[in-house]
Amino acid sequence: MAHVLIIGGGPAGCSAALTLRLRGADVTILRAGPSALEKAKRVDNYPGLSQMSGSDMQKNFDEQIKEAGVQEKNGLARLIQKTRKGFTVLAGDDMIKCDAVLLATGIGRVARLVGEDTLVGQGVSYCATCDGMLYKGRPVAVVAQDESFAEDVDFLRSICPVDYYMEKPHAAPEGVQVIDGKPKALRAEGEQVILTSENDEKPYDCVFILRPAVAMSTLLPKLEMNGEAVKVDEKMRTSVEGVFAAGDITGAPYQAARAVGQGNVAALAIAQYLNEKEKA
Amino acid sequence: MAHVLIIGGGPAGCSAALTLRLRGADVTILRAGPSALEKAKRVDNYPGLSQMSGSDMQKNFDEQIKEAGVQEKNGLARLIQKTRKGFTVLAGDDMIKCDAVLLATGIGRVARLVGEDTLVGQGVSYCATCDGMLYKGRPVAVVAQDESFAEDVDFLRSICPVDYYMEKPHAAPEGVQVIDGKPKALRAEGEQVILTSENDEKPYDCVFILRPAVAMSTLLPKLEMNGEAVKVDEKMRTSVEGVFAAGDITGAPYQAARAVGQGNVAALAIAQYLNEKEKA
Repeated sequence: MAHVLIIGGGPAGCSAALTLRLRGADVTILRAGPSALEKAKRVDNYPGLSQMSGSDMQKNFDEQIKEAGVQEKNGLARLIQKTRKGFTVLAGDDMIKCDAVLLATGIGRVARLVGEDTLVGQGVSYCATCDGMLYKGRPVAVVAQDESFAEDVDFLRSICPVDYYMEKPHAAPEGVQVIDGKPKALRAEGEQVILTSENDEKPYDCVFILRPAVAMSTLLPKLEMNGEAVKVDEKMRTSVEGVFAAGDITGAPYQAARAVGQGNVAALAIAQYLNEKEKA
Repeated sequence: MAHVLIIGGGPAGCSAALTLRLRGADVTILRAGPSALEKAKRVDNYPGLSQMSGSDMQKNFDEQIKEAGVQEKNGLARLIQKTRKGFTVLAGDDMIKCDAVLLATGIGRVARLVGEDTLVGQGVSYCATCDGMLYKGRPVAVVAQDESFAEDVDFLRSICPVDYYMEKPHAAPEGVQVIDGKPKALRAEGEQVILTSENDEKPYDCVFILRPAVAMSTLLPKLEMNGEAVKVDEKMRTSVEGVFAAGDITGAPYQAARAVGQGNVAALAIAQYLNEKEKA
């Protein structure tokens, strides 16, 4: 049975999951945190659920996908790689194999440091577990957006000296060496990366950037964008064959009803894609 | 306050109505009969309403739009006319004035007689109440698709001799002169229209064609189509400024979730249109 990975479990992801289950696909929803819907105080314009809080709506959707036999995983998708037979998605520390991918992660705004893009894999890493051991005993920095990465930071501190920078104010993991001042920019200097913050600059062998989201250009570098939105056609197909997108990630208006509709259209296009692939 | 007329009360129409109410518009939904959703045995892929019959879903939507203060009318939209300030829509025997129109009538397949298009207003009419008196005492034909026009037929019979043809088999109104054989084609001959049926041809001063749907080319002749679907852009705008479309009328896939999403997008585009119009 074909396996579809849906990255994001908000209205678009849940809608697509229901339709794909009806079409006989195995479906996994991967979540990296709460959906935008969950944070909505009240939604007054979703047909069928009257004047409900976003979190109650999301609970309702979640129960429905569970009943439909959708598998659920937690983890941040870090990289989508095309393979001969389909895709491998690096999610948290797992590798998930699938035949098609639906991007339904919500608005994809990810602030980046100046110079960050060009240094990925060359002294900049998004994954402590993946790359930590390469820097055992050497000086590294962690740039963290929030407190959700305490475990990664603990692991790094167990193998090397760590300086901790905060992109946004939050409670730092206990005992960590916090460097004052917001991180700003990165540049290479010999084998090292210089991290410039509001107050200072310091060299590191590696800078681990830990955010609850990954920029699309990191997740799937070949993906065509429309500004910050993923470019899709009328069937919600992206520029990468086998990768589809639905919901807020495709741009405004940011509405649950629209996301549900796009998820539905994407699911039917994925079913068609899998069907044609099987025949070929 | 701006007034939006939504033609059709299925998922697309109800979704648009909810969002337009939130945006402060007066909204009327005009229905000519049950929605396609109402006839669906069960819907398994609509987020929020789990494994429900189509008629229960529709009831749910209907309650919600009532609560939201949406006005509802029954009647078949026969003609949309652009006026200097907005639109006048001929609905049943009423004229409804509005600032914008949303077409959400569902799949728009309407079988037509050969030659019908060219004779509208020249011996072919879709409205007994509107045009009947013009033919007082003169021989007319009624071509009816189903039994829902008994009242129109009674009115015509009270003022002139009527022959009754059936497009599809149904119970004819009591006492009417039924002509055997399906109606096929129309052509002009002098001041009269010749109606050709399977068995015969006969001349009439007017042929009244009574169907529970009106072809888009009759409703709004300037509207651009994509085959049988109304052509829309990504904001659900049609080729006629101020007229939008959502749901099955825009083509496949025919799905409630998709219709709800399109209704939402259309409503936001209508709100923007009304806003810009008010400023201008």
